[in-house]
Amino acid sequence: MKKLINSVDNVEQEMIVGMVKAYPNHVRKLDCGNVVVRAHKKEGKVALISGGGSGHEPAHGGYVGEGMLDCAVAGAVFTSPTPDQIYEGIKAIATDKGVLMVVKNYTGDVMNFEMAAEMAEADGVSVKYVVTNDDVAVKDSLYTTGRRGVAGTVFVHKIAGAKAETGADLDEVHRVAQKVVDNVRTMGMALTPCTVPAAGKPGFELGEDEMEIGIGIHGEPGTHREKIRSADEIVTMLLDKIVADIDYSGKEVAVMVNGSGATPLMELFIANNKIHDYLTEKGIKIYKTFVGNYMTSIEMAGFSISLLRLDDELKELLDAKADTPAFKA
Amino acid sequence: MKKLINSVDNVEQEMIVGMVKAYPNHVRKLDCGNVVVRAHKKEGKVALISGGGSGHEPAHGGYVGEGMLDCAVAGAVFTSPTPDQIYEGIKAIATDKGVLMVVKNYTGDVMNFEMAAEMAEADGVSVKYVVTNDDVAVKDSLYTTGRRGVAGTVFVHKIAGAKAETGADLDEVHRVAQKVVDNVRTMGMALTPCTVPAAGKPGFELGEDEMEIGIGIHGEPGTHREKIRSADEIVTMLLDKIVADIDYSGKEVAVMVNGSGATPLMELFIANNKIHDYLTEKGIKIYKTFVGNYMTSIEMAGFSISLLRLDDELKELLDAKADTPAFKA
Repeated sequence: MKKLINSVDNVEQEMIVGMVKAYPNHVRKLDCGNVVVRAHKKEGKVALISGGGSGHEPAHGGYVGEGMLDCAVAGAVFTSPTPDQIYEGIKAIATDKGVLMVVKNYTGDVMNFEMAAEMAEADGVSVKYVVTNDDVAVKDSLYTTGRRGVAGTVFVHKIAGAKAETGADLDEVHRVAQKVVDNVRTMGMALTPCTVPAAGKPGFELGEDEMEIGIGIHGEPGTHREKIRSADEIVTMLLDKIVADIDYSGKEVAVMVNGSGATPLMELFIANNKIHDYLTEKGIKIYKTFVGNYMTSIEMAGFSISLLRLDDELKELLDAKADTPAFKA
Repeated sequence: MKKLINSVDNVEQEMIVGMVKAYPNHVRKLDCGNVVVRAHKKEGKVALISGGGSGHEPAHGGYVGEGMLDCAVAGAVFTSPTPDQIYEGIKAIATDKGVLMVVKNYTGDVMNFEMAAEMAEADGVSVKYVVTNDDVAVKDSLYTTGRRGVAGTVFVHKIAGAKAETGADLDEVHRVAQKVVDNVRTMGMALTPCTVPAAGKPGFELGEDEMEIGIGIHGEPGTHREKIRSADEIVTMLLDKIVADIDYSGKEVAVMVNGSGATPLMELFIANNKIHDYLTEKGIKIYKTFVGNYMTSIEMAGFSISLLRLDDELKELLDAKADTPAFKA
């Protein structure tokens, strides 16, 4: 295992502290654990909290700030945060407008966020939540009943965060968040596996000429393995499955070409070249494209494509101001 | 070689076209080759051009836009762009205020940019240039006489770009660019090599427990190889050499923690944790920190640290508005 770390026991803590030291005007860390909140709490708005296992950076701490999240809770690498951690986060950010939780669909995450919500509600905080499940690759997976929540989650942060910033009430912010969940689909692939520091070896193996199609963001199995194909063929395989899932025809979309951590930007742009042509050919209009590392899997090489079906409301919220460490608009 | 590409002959072209398709409001491609200019030319300002070999993405095309570059010229991977390409770029962006070239110190780059400048001057365009040489690791290297220009170059784009945006004349923009060159220092290291697509195999090899200290952004040899050490020890080695080069004591600095392409953000934040503590202990005040992939080496795993010594003028220009695909302020 070749990693730039000090101790496998300490990667999450040192990472979070290192992030806060990089962006002190944006974020601060709570004393109770790896919980990051905005440097300056904003009252009078619904507060957004998200999180999950570490290893997906910049998700989720990098999305804390104006126009997106109020709090991100980081568990150990690829491990759900605890209900206590999430509860502390909710307490720190709760306003009289209430709290919206954005939870990726993994059994542990959903259970722990739900428990934290119950604890907060017992304190009188209003809490609602959405569960993202944008990954069209497989139904039911290693850590999931139903579809997995993956990179499309970042669109929920952005758009629900923008809605919350307007002062909208909890029902309204929840409605918009659910609208994004309903309209975003993602599928990914991997060229190489990744290594959880505490495990010390890759979570799975791939042959020198093999790729995994439909892989999850923790390296969970996808639809199948096969010999590596060209970037254009791979993009076509992923998009064929995405556009078969909901009807994108004649719609405007936001595209996210998301690197898994070790994928050069060069390759993401080469993928985007084909994505653009594919969608144009299908009569799907691209409103905005995001290319970069948004929801990673430590040092996995691979990428995912997310397509968000837009309407005027979502477009306006997607374009609204955001000022966070990892996402500025 | 595991890469998400179509053909090794076509990576640069497909990448540039894929980038332009992602950011059509920011950039457009000239017909003459892999030359990217702002989507909307701005008159009445000094025009900035930079570039070099491909493989360093988002450098340099990602920095074309308001407040930074007007043009980026991309050669083949790790290969200087040709004088003709650069000349076409200069012609496309030249204004009556003149053109500033920002050139990284590699023999081929310097020669080809100089030739292009002569061609443009023969057309009556005023051209000045700076050569960045921020890498403190080694003097004279594989492709370089003198020190190599590396990630610190991005600070030149940002700050000289902001100065140009004010309408300052060519001498003034050149002065500020040179001030950044004089005040920025960088050093990097690698855990794994990278593979130029056309070569099909890594440019060098590193043992499973080895790292290279002081490596160049094309994989050129650094100061030495040794067994991998902890992140804190590695940061200390790099910073010891940087702060010995110019006097940072009592100064304010901008810090860039730059990933080489395959380095998880997690590890860059762990490095930043130590960088912050090291500088604080030395009485060096951190004004702003940038953590991410700014000047990469395809899929090399590793990172570099850049320290820019600031004064009030540089701080104001560093903070000024920038709106480019890869850098927003």
